[in-house]
Amino acid sequence: MQTIGILGGGQLARMLALAGAPLGLRFLVVDSAEDACAGQVAPLLRTDWRDFDRLGEFAARVDVATFDFENVPAETAHWLTEHVPVFPNPRALAISQDRLAEKTLFREIGLDTPAFAPVNSRDELARALEHVGAPAILKTRRLGYDGKGQFRLKSAADVDAAWEALGGAPSILEAFVPFERELSVIAVRSREGEFRTYPLTQNWHADGILAASLAPAPHAEALAPVAYAHARRIAEELDYVGVFALELFVRDGELLGNEMAPRVHNSGHWTIEGAPASQFENHLRAVLGLPLGDSGALDIHVMLNWIGELPDPLPILAEPRAHWHDYGKSARAGRKVGHATVCARSAVEMRERLTRIGKALGREAQVAPVLAALTSD
Amino acid sequence: MQTIGILGGGQLARMLALAGAPLGLRFLVVDSAEDACAGQVAPLLRTDWRDFDRLGEFAARVDVATFDFENVPAETAHWLTEHVPVFPNPRALAISQDRLAEKTLFREIGLDTPAFAPVNSRDELARALEHVGAPAILKTRRLGYDGKGQFRLKSAADVDAAWEALGGAPSILEAFVPFERELSVIAVRSREGEFRTYPLTQNWHADGILAASLAPAPHAEALAPVAYAHARRIAEELDYVGVFALELFVRDGELLGNEMAPRVHNSGHWTIEGAPASQFENHLRAVLGLPLGDSGALDIHVMLNWIGELPDPLPILAEPRAHWHDYGKSARAGRKVGHATVCARSAVEMRERLTRIGKALGREAQVAPVLAALTSD
Repeated sequence: MQTIGILGGGQLARMLALAGAPLGLRFLVVDSAEDACAGQVAPLLRTDWRDFDRLGEFAARVDVATFDFENVPAETAHWLTEHVPVFPNPRALAISQDRLAEKTLFREIGLDTPAFAPVNSRDELARALEHVGAPAILKTRRLGYDGKGQFRLKSAADVDAAWEALGGAPSILEAFVPFERELSVIAVRSREGEFRTYPLTQNWHADGILAASLAPAPHAEALAPVAYAHARRIAEELDYVGVFALELFVRDGELLGNEMAPRVHNSGHWTIEGAPASQFENHLRAVLGLPLGDSGALDIHVMLNWIGELPDPLPILAEPRAHWHDYGKSARAGRKVGHATVCARSAVEMRERLTRIGKALGREAQVAPVLAALTSD
Repeated sequence: MQTIGILGGGQLARMLALAGAPLGLRFLVVDSAEDACAGQVAPLLRTDWRDFDRLGEFAARVDVATFDFENVPAETAHWLTEHVPVFPNPRALAISQDRLAEKTLFREIGLDTPAFAPVNSRDELARALEHVGAPAILKTRRLGYDGKGQFRLKSAADVDAAWEALGGAPSILEAFVPFERELSVIAVRSREGEFRTYPLTQNWHADGILAASLAPAPHAEALAPVAYAHARRIAEELDYVGVFALELFVRDGELLGNEMAPRVHNSGHWTIEGAPASQFENHLRAVLGLPLGDSGALDIHVMLNWIGELPDPLPILAEPRAHWHDYGKSARAGRKVGHATVCARSAVEMRERLTRIGKALGREAQVAPVLAALTSD
């Protein structure tokens, strides 16, 4: 019986533990918060990321370690690799923690990106804006997620405000891309080098946070193999082990690399019901060196994110093939507290289900772009 | 956040807890064994069934109580109902704990059964055998499962041996029925009286223990509505709340009632992957008074039971749409330690998968009757 250690005890760790139980796996989760929601389904060890005594206890109790949270300090990840196998490896983690290194890698493997430039000072920001062009987005190189650590510049007049907003942190200025669609590839590579992708997923954000996903992304037959090939090159370049998400924009019908997340990803939650082996199960198989599971989509799947607080569960529970996911977290503005996945055999059936759900929950705006994507021919 | 109490901490409690986590439910499991396998995924309170101090603590910590194990003493179930809502109710539990009361109920609601007679003494057994006819099976009225507490009589010469084997416990003698098929209905009724059934399942036993299940049972179009109607009458007669299994024989194309299990059931494990809402999720919805979930079969599903010890998992992990379930129990002869569920869109695809699995595991005998059922037209 093997024990998987997970750094970070949020909903991703929780869903990893739930997916791993049928595989006969045990878990140990470390988190700084006593009420980390993964602690409801797996043993929780409370520690700071720099408490190496506690981390040593953690390492001694697990067979392999992985992440719920990519912003674990690089120092901690490195230290751990000396005590227990850690996947993904610290280099992969470090590159995907740094927007500049990440975009540089994308270009190296042949994936185009929006124009970008590094920014380490106010003056460099001004020069970068001339190079990249307005509008543009200034983002901290590290610790950004869900739209945090970002500032949008409409013109050179915004340089001072932007530089101040980000507190002078090492940053990257990116051209604002008027994209047509946002897509993501959920990919997985095992310790044995086996590689698989889930079908391309189309995503919609609201206030910088994922609001809805649709898989397989419609009308993506031409883009999908290109996206999968990029994901494979990134995985092989980083000797990546585990699941990762590659987020892409589509502009003028071409793919642009936005960012990667070195872990199971919100846009892959639909795989719990929608794929024979979910992203959570495949991440565990990958880090254990087991054969990867079937990552095809069984039907059409839509994931609706619950941000801040949960809506009334009854319209989801009453809807055929709709699945409720409550992460066991308390409500807080901007916090991911749960999601629902709706499955259907046809676009017509999916539209009916989403329309009923949107209406019953008063969330017509959340389902509207998905409905539009399902109707466009 | 509601807490569900479960009496008994085996694999059924474990799978209930795993199904309930996404619903935002918490669990508390009571069991006499410190290593009860549900304790790996939910808090475990160790107690004896007659330790009313500990049971009082249990009752105080849960919002509703239910069962992983039907042979909880009736006295314990009654005591609990005075402290917390308990589903199914003690009368339903008592009737399904008693083979005589159970078969009497089947006849009352119009479901035929094999001939049977109560047996409380050696002489009564001799008379019962004359009435029922040989061959026949003597079974204890209580505490029998997986072929335990049974003795098969070929003739009157076996009366003494049979009476001795069962230790003089109150028993029932049942005619041995040369049945064509074994089927089960997994049914669920909620606190609100909502009733649903999963598609009929065909079952195969080896040494009195379930070896394989196939759902939906093929060629059962005529029998299914009859079976569902019997299940509904039983549920309504008992004011039953939760999932139960009704096990049936088919003899000369007609249904005979064999027994019922007042809980989630081994022949319904395929619903984890095979139905939009599994038997575990629907049991929880039922006891909480939530709307019941969709209980249709998504595809064709075969469950293979692992008895005594787990086979090599790799052939299952490598097979598309095959799902591994390790209960986290130690190996022991006759013990249910895990199962696998295989899903397919067609009988042809299922036959290919089962053939590969049977061969790779050296378990051709376990899959053979399922293959035969999938090929017969």
